[in-house]
Amino acid sequence: MAPVTNGRVILNAYAEGFPEPGKTIIYDDASIIDLDNVPLEGGVLIKTLELSVDPYFRNRMNPPPPPGQGTANGFTLGQPLHGGGVAVVLRSEDDRLKAGDKFFESFSLPHQHYSILKGSQLNGVEILKNPHNIPWSAFTGVLGMPGLSAYAGWKEHSKAKEGEVAFVTSGAGPVGSLVVQLAKIEGLKVIASAGSEEKLQFMRDLGADVVFNYKTTDTKEVLAKEGPIDIYWDNVGGETLDAALINANINARFIECGMISGYNNGHSKGIKNIYQVVARQISMNGFFVGRLGDKYRKEFLDFIEPKIANGEIKYAEDRFIGLEKVGEAIAQVQRGLVKAKAVVHVASENI
Amino acid sequence: MAPVTNGRVILNAYAEGFPEPGKTIIYDDASIIDLDNVPLEGGVLIKTLELSVDPYFRNRMNPPPPPGQGTANGFTLGQPLHGGGVAVVLRSEDDRLKAGDKFFESFSLPHQHYSILKGSQLNGVEILKNPHNIPWSAFTGVLGMPGLSAYAGWKEHSKAKEGEVAFVTSGAGPVGSLVVQLAKIEGLKVIASAGSEEKLQFMRDLGADVVFNYKTTDTKEVLAKEGPIDIYWDNVGGETLDAALINANINARFIECGMISGYNNGHSKGIKNIYQVVARQISMNGFFVGRLGDKYRKEFLDFIEPKIANGEIKYAEDRFIGLEKVGEAIAQVQRGLVKAKAVVHVASENI
Repeated sequence: MAPVTNGRVILNAYAEGFPEPGKTIIYDDASIIDLDNVPLEGGVLIKTLELSVDPYFRNRMNPPPPPGQGTANGFTLGQPLHGGGVAVVLRSEDDRLKAGDKFFESFSLPHQHYSILKGSQLNGVEILKNPHNIPWSAFTGVLGMPGLSAYAGWKEHSKAKEGEVAFVTSGAGPVGSLVVQLAKIEGLKVIASAGSEEKLQFMRDLGADVVFNYKTTDTKEVLAKEGPIDIYWDNVGGETLDAALINANINARFIECGMISGYNNGHSKGIKNIYQVVARQISMNGFFVGRLGDKYRKEFLDFIEPKIANGEIKYAEDRFIGLEKVGEAIAQVQRGLVKAKAVVHVASENI
Repeated sequence: MAPVTNGRVILNAYAEGFPEPGKTIIYDDASIIDLDNVPLEGGVLIKTLELSVDPYFRNRMNPPPPPGQGTANGFTLGQPLHGGGVAVVLRSEDDRLKAGDKFFESFSLPHQHYSILKGSQLNGVEILKNPHNIPWSAFTGVLGMPGLSAYAGWKEHSKAKEGEVAFVTSGAGPVGSLVVQLAKIEGLKVIASAGSEEKLQFMRDLGADVVFNYKTTDTKEVLAKEGPIDIYWDNVGGETLDAALINANINARFIECGMISGYNNGHSKGIKNIYQVVARQISMNGFFVGRLGDKYRKEFLDFIEPKIANGEIKYAEDRFIGLEKVGEAIAQVQRGLVKAKAVVHVASENI
């Protein structure tokens, strides 16, 4: 077979404010690859099938922090983005994988059509058995990093007790929608917020007891009426976090999964009610699934795969078709314009 | 014996901004009591010896919160303040106490010379054996609520490991000074801040590795040089909390004991760096010793009484003489003018 184009999604500039497709992120089709003959040097040649596009990407588009301050897990200027995704092995010189294997990579799958991975780059790879024949895209969402985030964060930090009240932000999103369902399975009253009628309906379908549109309803009023809250699942930060703080029960647990309200304005709106952490003896835990996920990955899949297959746990996707759509998908995620978990379908699994 | 004056310290008005002696808090000497004949109705007559004056008093001077929102543990308008202290029993009709017993009460000892306590009011009372003949005032400080706060908060939330870095604010105060010493006993590097040269010297004497005056030195710069910090003991909140957030190590533990920087300005300075809770997977725990102390009280006294007696653990006090000085003591604590643990010496133990 003749060499083929190997499209790539490149970080062209660090983001200031919202990322812009064509400026912050560009699609580059100048590379070619000879799939039959490219040397593997002990590695594997893979074809990308599905890519996850997530809110936390925004942070990876910032300049790296000064040495010793914070994590340096950002994207590299001029290089392809990378993230969670599903790929199929085309050729392999590594004993861990063989041609035809489908696998999931949580954080480091390059945003390009074809990649050669080798050595330690394959350490995080997980072969997908997929006994229930669930669509591959689901492994970037409810069965992937967002689903595992929900599961691991909830199991590690919620200390949920039946009859308690949980408030879940972005309750129709890929993380929040599973949190809503986990909380309902464990017998909690669930208050869930989102930004459109379509999403409210989805949250009702998931079993949420109280749903509201944060754009048209005052979060503080809803929580004052339906709270106090024992668990706050934070995907939002900002004023919503402030509203949760003054409507928290004593000994409430705040699970800090993300703060998208601040990602594109430098978190410029300060938190006013942080003193409630002391006054109400709140436990606030920030976590990244990258550090917590390994502990829960197997338990998570055993729990959730059959429930996805039989429909007991629901999920939704907003699909973008084609690798060149990654920049647009990222921008829509950051602006809250996607209706559900954003996934970019890159290719079908047929070699 | 003829009836005697029973002086009382009264909440005269809810505080706005800093409490003012003579306005927010008044000393009232209009009551008398007949110590020999006043009916006890099954209770005990006590004489107050030492009263603890603590930063958290300020919160008790606010109007009560709306129903269902937060704790209603404030002082009552027109009634005596109450708090931690040591008293001696003068007469008793309750089997739990006999005349001559000295006891400690964490939260509810009335700020008056003589009180009759009965039934459930005696549930929190703890008879002090004091085998090492430590001065009674120490049981309001290093052996009392502040000391227990330090011990319980540290043991419950620090997850300290040898070689880690702890940053302790108000490191010369009654809580912070014990935290500094606990951290040194467990082999940590300790950075401690306070607001005067005298306090810095005290913190050096306690073994702190790095001390600085937060009024003249930029906290961010000290932490950037000496950190990142694994444990933050927060007595301050505000800009100091923000500085700690951007100088925290991954998986840092923030122990939220108090936020005095905001008590008298409505916490009007928002927290800007709260996102670091997610980015650095920080665990932030607010606590009140009232809810955590019971678990640790006995272990704490067994650990600390001999170390106080032999000088291995040091403490300092700023003594106010006379019940009528409570208002002034409270104001000085809130304005950061006391040099050490504030204690009001009310009477000697001789009946």
